[in-house]
Amino acid sequence: MNFIETDRRCMARALELASRGRYSTHPNPRVGCVLAHEGRIVGEGWHQRAGGPHAEVFALQQAGAAAKGATAYITLEPCAHYGRTPPCSLALIEAGIRRAVVACQDPFHQVDGNGLRLLREAGIEVEVGLLREEAEALNLGFLSNARRGRPWVRLKYGMSLDGRTALADGESKWITSEASRHDVQLWRQASSAILTSSATVLADDPQLTVRIPFDQPVPPVKRIVLDRWSRVPAQARVFDTQAPTLVAHRYDNPPATDLADHVERLPLLARDDEKMLWELMEVLGERSIHDLFVEAGARLGGALIKAGLVDELLLYVAPRLLGANARPLIEGLSPDSLALAPGFELYECTQLGDDVRLRLRAKARGIEQYRAHAWVAADEIGSLSQAR
Amino acid sequence: MNFIETDRRCMARALELASRGRYSTHPNPRVGCVLAHEGRIVGEGWHQRAGGPHAEVFALQQAGAAAKGATAYITLEPCAHYGRTPPCSLALIEAGIRRAVVACQDPFHQVDGNGLRLLREAGIEVEVGLLREEAEALNLGFLSNARRGRPWVRLKYGMSLDGRTALADGESKWITSEASRHDVQLWRQASSAILTSSATVLADDPQLTVRIPFDQPVPPVKRIVLDRWSRVPAQARVFDTQAPTLVAHRYDNPPATDLADHVERLPLLARDDEKMLWELMEVLGERSIHDLFVEAGARLGGALIKAGLVDELLLYVAPRLLGANARPLIEGLSPDSLALAPGFELYECTQLGDDVRLRLRAKARGIEQYRAHAWVAADEIGSLSQAR
Repeated sequence: MNFIETDRRCMARALELASRGRYSTHPNPRVGCVLAHEGRIVGEGWHQRAGGPHAEVFALQQAGAAAKGATAYITLEPCAHYGRTPPCSLALIEAGIRRAVVACQDPFHQVDGNGLRLLREAGIEVEVGLLREEAEALNLGFLSNARRGRPWVRLKYGMSLDGRTALADGESKWITSEASRHDVQLWRQASSAILTSSATVLADDPQLTVRIPFDQPVPPVKRIVLDRWSRVPAQARVFDTQAPTLVAHRYDNPPATDLADHVERLPLLARDDEKMLWELMEVLGERSIHDLFVEAGARLGGALIKAGLVDELLLYVAPRLLGANARPLIEGLSPDSLALAPGFELYECTQLGDDVRLRLRAKARGIEQYRAHAWVAADEIGSLSQAR
Repeated sequence: MNFIETDRRCMARALELASRGRYSTHPNPRVGCVLAHEGRIVGEGWHQRAGGPHAEVFALQQAGAAAKGATAYITLEPCAHYGRTPPCSLALIEAGIRRAVVACQDPFHQVDGNGLRLLREAGIEVEVGLLREEAEALNLGFLSNARRGRPWVRLKYGMSLDGRTALADGESKWITSEASRHDVQLWRQASSAILTSSATVLADDPQLTVRIPFDQPVPPVKRIVLDRWSRVPAQARVFDTQAPTLVAHRYDNPPATDLADHVERLPLLARDDEKMLWELMEVLGERSIHDLFVEAGARLGGALIKAGLVDELLLYVAPRLLGANARPLIEGLSPDSLALAPGFELYECTQLGDDVRLRLRAKARGIEQYRAHAWVAADEIGSLSQAR
């Protein structure tokens, strides 16, 4: 593909617009759209919230008659189906655009190339792939769920330089800087849900809500407690009414009857721990939980990593040393050799107050392993699904 | 002070020149000098090795008659004493420079303001402090030893994301990337000496030499083994003839008689572990060990940190997770609260191959504590010094 500098600039602008939806579009993807004539922008739009107009609609509105003959720069393939709004592909065709540059095809089964096909059939010149990586980074969860049927799992830890999350007595307030803690609030809001464990709830009784203001309305972020044995009491703060909560438990260990009605129950059928985690992820995927933010302890983190379910590590490293008696970052992992130790790729390193924030992506372990996992889990779930 | 952009540019150049001596000037400081007329450079020089000419001499040679009326930009106060070479202050005066801009005063007792005084008395305009911080960063060890009577202690670790240096069985080859290991070689050569522990020598039998080529002759870097109980056998690789070695032991536990003669013995008099570390540092300071690079395990690292002797952490963080059974970074530290955990300040974060390199400086714990330490150690050493 031969994109000129003008194309690149317009798409970068569309990405910038799309990112404004970072905290508010869930469960929809973040999308931006720019309409331009040879680089002169005549319309801009971004998707703001589910149920509201798509990016293309805002841009077409702003452009009016100037949309005719324009090039549309769109960060994600325009939709081709009647959802809560009519298909954007048709709107673009009706407005008479001449050319469409799309950063990334939409793998969602109701779109998946159909938007591009409609445009092409209408005689519009269509090009795909400009700034694709940047566009995908905006919708890691949405794309993960459409492609793999499970959320993008981001595991977060606040830790010391020597990989400790708390002193031996559990003291962890506050290892990390205020800037890091503020950043965590942003990541929470950018997620579809926050996952924690019964152990963390029992130890810290966190509320797991977003407590910072945003300059636009944002939806509440769902809290998910993995509580296999239904150990968490109904009085836990995570069960309050500040945000929706789902409690996942073994199907044969339902929560106590005093758990408030607004707390959703999710019985899990798998008995094996690793399969249970896969089952949980697949169910969450079905329920449009695209970006899952995990705030838990060493054990759940370790189990998710061991199961191959962690896609990203988000580490806030505070410049302190806590020593060998303090709490470890990860439990349940004991690689037999360095080559077998779970590996990641660093792709972002930022200073936040006194801390360093590292973002790392899991190294692909080969699609076969994932498939094997998925197959086993699906099989077991299939045979038991009558129980749910 | 009012430095103009020209001054800043010339001093930056002098710093660049000085840094060329990074691997070769030990035990002398790294110094660069630029002679210029209103920003037009007429002479440049840098100190290359102990016993060779100082930076100023090279610059004056290059400038010749053009030195007359020039401004000299020097990264460290010019010397005022007859050492292995005649004093540079006099050479600058004789050459007829008009003005001297000095980044940093030399706290070495034979200079310590005398160089500046000589220049001023000769009617030369003298300004001090331009790019001081950058100039000090080039000579952390030299300045530390001149000011505090002990080396700048840089503690290095290669570690996983979860702060582990090896698997439970000791496997640690190779946690970090090739780029990191190459970088370690550079830091070794930039040091006056490499300190390790008997535990590390007994476990890994490292040679601790510099094994990469440099484009200029570099002196061998001394190896120091802290072996209180003289447990290390004479056959250890660290005692080979590839570089000088010093073995520090408790005075009442001398090494076995088969230790080769080329290995220097250093009996330590203090019995308390922490005081012994202070004694070691003070003795090393007296012997012009300015930059001490520590490559040891969790215990010696922890003891040095606890003693308040670590000035800098150099951490190579590999993007892997080794789990809670793997070897911890630091032992012997158990802070009672987070506020008491040793704190550092991040001042450099670099990607090296797949790894992240963090450089952190110890937060000052208050000069009183250091003084108290020094006093106790000096006292004990004083009363026992007849024994050495």
